[in-house]
Amino acid sequence: MKLALIGMGSVGRGVAGMIAKKDLGLTVTGLADSTSGVMDPNGLDIPLLLANKKKNGYCGNPDLTALEIINKADYDALVEVTPTNAQSGEPAIGYIKAAFVRKKHVVTSNKGPIALAYRELRAMADNNGVALRYEATVAGAVPIMHTLEQGLAGNEILALYGVLNGTCNYILTRMAAEGLTYEQALMEAREMGYAEADPSYDVKGIDAAIKLVILTNTIWGQGVRLSDVNCTGIDLLTPDALRLAEDEGCTIRLIAEAIPRKHILRVSPRIIEKNHPLVVDGTLNALTLETDMAKEITLIGRGAGSIETASAIIGDLLFIRDRYDRRA
Amino acid sequence: MKLALIGMGSVGRGVAGMIAKKDLGLTVTGLADSTSGVMDPNGLDIPLLLANKKKNGYCGNPDLTALEIINKADYDALVEVTPTNAQSGEPAIGYIKAAFVRKKHVVTSNKGPIALAYRELRAMADNNGVALRYEATVAGAVPIMHTLEQGLAGNEILALYGVLNGTCNYILTRMAAEGLTYEQALMEAREMGYAEADPSYDVKGIDAAIKLVILTNTIWGQGVRLSDVNCTGIDLLTPDALRLAEDEGCTIRLIAEAIPRKHILRVSPRIIEKNHPLVVDGTLNALTLETDMAKEITLIGRGAGSIETASAIIGDLLFIRDRYDRRA
Repeated sequence: MKLALIGMGSVGRGVAGMIAKKDLGLTVTGLADSTSGVMDPNGLDIPLLLANKKKNGYCGNPDLTALEIINKADYDALVEVTPTNAQSGEPAIGYIKAAFVRKKHVVTSNKGPIALAYRELRAMADNNGVALRYEATVAGAVPIMHTLEQGLAGNEILALYGVLNGTCNYILTRMAAEGLTYEQALMEAREMGYAEADPSYDVKGIDAAIKLVILTNTIWGQGVRLSDVNCTGIDLLTPDALRLAEDEGCTIRLIAEAIPRKHILRVSPRIIEKNHPLVVDGTLNALTLETDMAKEITLIGRGAGSIETASAIIGDLLFIRDRYDRRA
Repeated sequence: MKLALIGMGSVGRGVAGMIAKKDLGLTVTGLADSTSGVMDPNGLDIPLLLANKKKNGYCGNPDLTALEIINKADYDALVEVTPTNAQSGEPAIGYIKAAFVRKKHVVTSNKGPIALAYRELRAMADNNGVALRYEATVAGAVPIMHTLEQGLAGNEILALYGVLNGTCNYILTRMAAEGLTYEQALMEAREMGYAEADPSYDVKGIDAAIKLVILTNTIWGQGVRLSDVNCTGIDLLTPDALRLAEDEGCTIRLIAEAIPRKHILRVSPRIIEKNHPLVVDGTLNALTLETDMAKEITLIGRGAGSIETASAIIGDLLFIRDRYDRRA
């Protein structure tokens, strides 16, 4: 299976490295970062290109753009791992559409296109008889989409409750464990590399809300938007509130929840019993699915990381290979 | 897809009821309990047969045996849900082999055949080009096998750690929460219907060890046996031991663990940090998979129950339908 890999940030380098290391039958024939591109129908020398990237900051020919790679390279599936643009979804939406026009499968870790243009992209994939997969967009390495599709096949999903933002969960864990203020815990998260210089995208609940939109549209196909999510962040939370919760054997977590029967689509800090499976520590992510037969199923794992995200992308690629090979 | 359903205990009735209730494209054409059988190539009237079973204690023709149904009915997949015999695996092993001889797929919730005769049964399935699936044998509704196969595809599984026996977990939870002795907690578990009159199969760790054998052989194909598991139960545990663990922010859980790199295959009470994802309360089951790319992934859910187990069986059936339809 031949791949065009677009994006050479942390995720792209992780995917490239794992594909080069493991004998999975995956070959990268096209590759682009933000300033260069390279292609070879017989397969690129990934270790060499990764070394070039490290040395020079780019890894291909500066005259070749990502879109040219997508439009000209010889590949079966596009791996789109450019950074998320939560406002426009571009340039990723354009990249994905260009691949669909060529009847290529698409695997992405990019939340922008899936949160902003899911219905349109799903329709294009279906009309062209190819796959659109995005396991890595929600909860990193945790195989949520596979569980919804295969593991819980036959179940009706009644509701979902998730801890989907590692930065917020780290801050809340530290506030509860050490009695830190929000500002102190945020500073610590920054020092650990868990929070951005401008943390508002995480701490105001926007990142979790985007993931909630992706999950909701995947499960119930409702076409909800970010503006439909009732969203409250953790930035106004006080140590007193956490202390009160702890006194009752509870704690506070930023919970993304979708409960269609109650018309609830919400991200907010919630008081939750400490022994509930959703209460995970540090930067872990967790998701509880409430179903009609299996009842509550909880999945826990790492929501970020280069190799962890590569795991989700490679899982999607192997699924496509397996599924479409058998079809052909 | 036509099914022969063998076994009409709690699990069999759950499967039959869910198939009758949901429009999944599954039709039961043969059915047997321990004393009777019934078949109809056009599909059986499940609600009527369930009512008969409730009223009379059997649901078919006393002259028809399970083996006759397996050998004569018109079906695509055998659903084998008779009770586990941990010594011989029979009559389930014989039932499964009879289905393979007829080139029928097999889905089972029965731990006996998978723990005792996995290699032989897997070879028969492969040689006949049919599926052998057993998601329900370990951790009930929790889709562990699907996660190993699809969700974590491409990962190397390095180790596994599981809370795989709900009875033990209930007893340990109650000992820790209320300071009960083992005997008091066991009595409570009996009153709640979580423990058998003879609890030794559960509390001595044998049930967890059987599930560990199933997981180990599934993941690493080593052909290990129950006698290879270093097994210690919870029946000698004192409230003092639990109190000491709790003083350190830890608790005790019966952990089944397989760590090939350390040659560890063990079921034993372990001291474990309370905030570890594996520490679940009551009768819940949990499994942490340690992998090379996704790192630690934990799955939590109900390990028993009629409808919960039906969820796992139906997931296996839909997987077979999807996979083999596309192949055909």
